[in-house]
Amino acid sequence: MAFNIVLIEPEIPNNTGNIGRLALATGSHLHLVKPFGFELIDKRLKRAGLDYWQYLSISIYENSDAFFSQHSDKTKVYFSSHGERNHWSIDYKDDLFLIFGKESVGLSEEITEKHRDNLYKIPLYSEHIRSLNLANAVGIVVYEGLRQQTNP
Amino acid sequence: MAFNIVLIEPEIPNNTGNIGRLALATGSHLHLVKPFGFELIDKRLKRAGLDYWQYLSISIYENSDAFFSQHSDKTKVYFSSHGERNHWSIDYKDDLFLIFGKESVGLSEEITEKHRDNLYKIPLYSEHIRSLNLANAVGIVVYEGLRQQTNP
Repeated sequence: MAFNIVLIEPEIPNNTGNIGRLALATGSHLHLVKPFGFELIDKRLKRAGLDYWQYLSISIYENSDAFFSQHSDKTKVYFSSHGERNHWSIDYKDDLFLIFGKESVGLSEEITEKHRDNLYKIPLYSEHIRSLNLANAVGIVVYEGLRQQTNP
Repeated sequence: MAFNIVLIEPEIPNNTGNIGRLALATGSHLHLVKPFGFELIDKRLKRAGLDYWQYLSISIYENSDAFFSQHSDKTKVYFSSHGERNHWSIDYKDDLFLIFGKESVGLSEEITEKHRDNLYKIPLYSEHIRSLNLANAVGIVVYEGLRQQTNP
C-alpha cells in the first residue's frame, strides 16, 4: 500500500508543503523534479510542511530526463485536464507513479502527447473552473487509490 | 448530485479560496459560518478563489447557532480526527451537509460530542500527521461523494 507522488517543476511552495503532508499521511513516496519555483529550504515550505518534513520519504531530480531515465520501468499515470478518462477508472496497484505537472500550465505537451494512453483527469462540473488546486488534486487521487486498496 | 460544504469559523483565506474553487467545480453549495479569520473581501481570498468566486453558490451565517437553526432538518455529517468511522463509509445522498471545523482546532468539543454518531475521519497512515490541510480534506470527501453518485 504505497504510491509514488511525482511533482514535475512545482511552482508554489505552499502546495509542495501540503503535498508533503499528504505524502507522509498516506505512506507515499514524494518525487520532486527541478526546476522548482522556490528554494526547498524556503521558510514557506517549512511552514506549510511543518515539523514532519524530516520524516518524509523524498527524492529530488535535477530535471525530467533524470526522473524518467531512473524510473523507465515503472507503471505511471499522468494527470491533466486534457485527460479523457477520469481518475476513478485507474487501477491503483502498489508502487504506481502518479505524475502531476506545474500549477500554471500542467504537464508539458511533449509529456501529454507521449503518454496519451495513460492520461487521466479529475472530473470538473463547472465551465468556470479549468483545474483544481494542485495539492487538492493530489489528495483526491491518492485517497481514491487508498480506497481501492482498502475497500476493494 | 449536489452537496453542501460547511466551514465553521475558517481561519485561513487561502483555504477558503481553494474550497470555493472546489465547491464550484463540484456543483456544491458553500456555507461559511462566522467569525472568519479574515475579511471575505480579503485580497488573498480573491487571489486564491480567482475570478470564479462570483459564480459560487454561497451562504454566510453570523454564528453557528444561526446555521444550525436554519438547517435543523437537514442530514449532516461531521469531520474530525476524533471520528471513529472513515469517510468512505458515509452514504453520500443528495443535499448532504458536510461539516468541517476551523484549521487550528477543528470542530468544537460541544459539536463533536453532540454528533458523535455522525462523526467521521479521513484515515491517516502516519503517527507524525494529525490532520490534513482543510482544503485537501474537503476535496477528498466531496470527490468520494461524487464517486459514489457517479459510479454506484
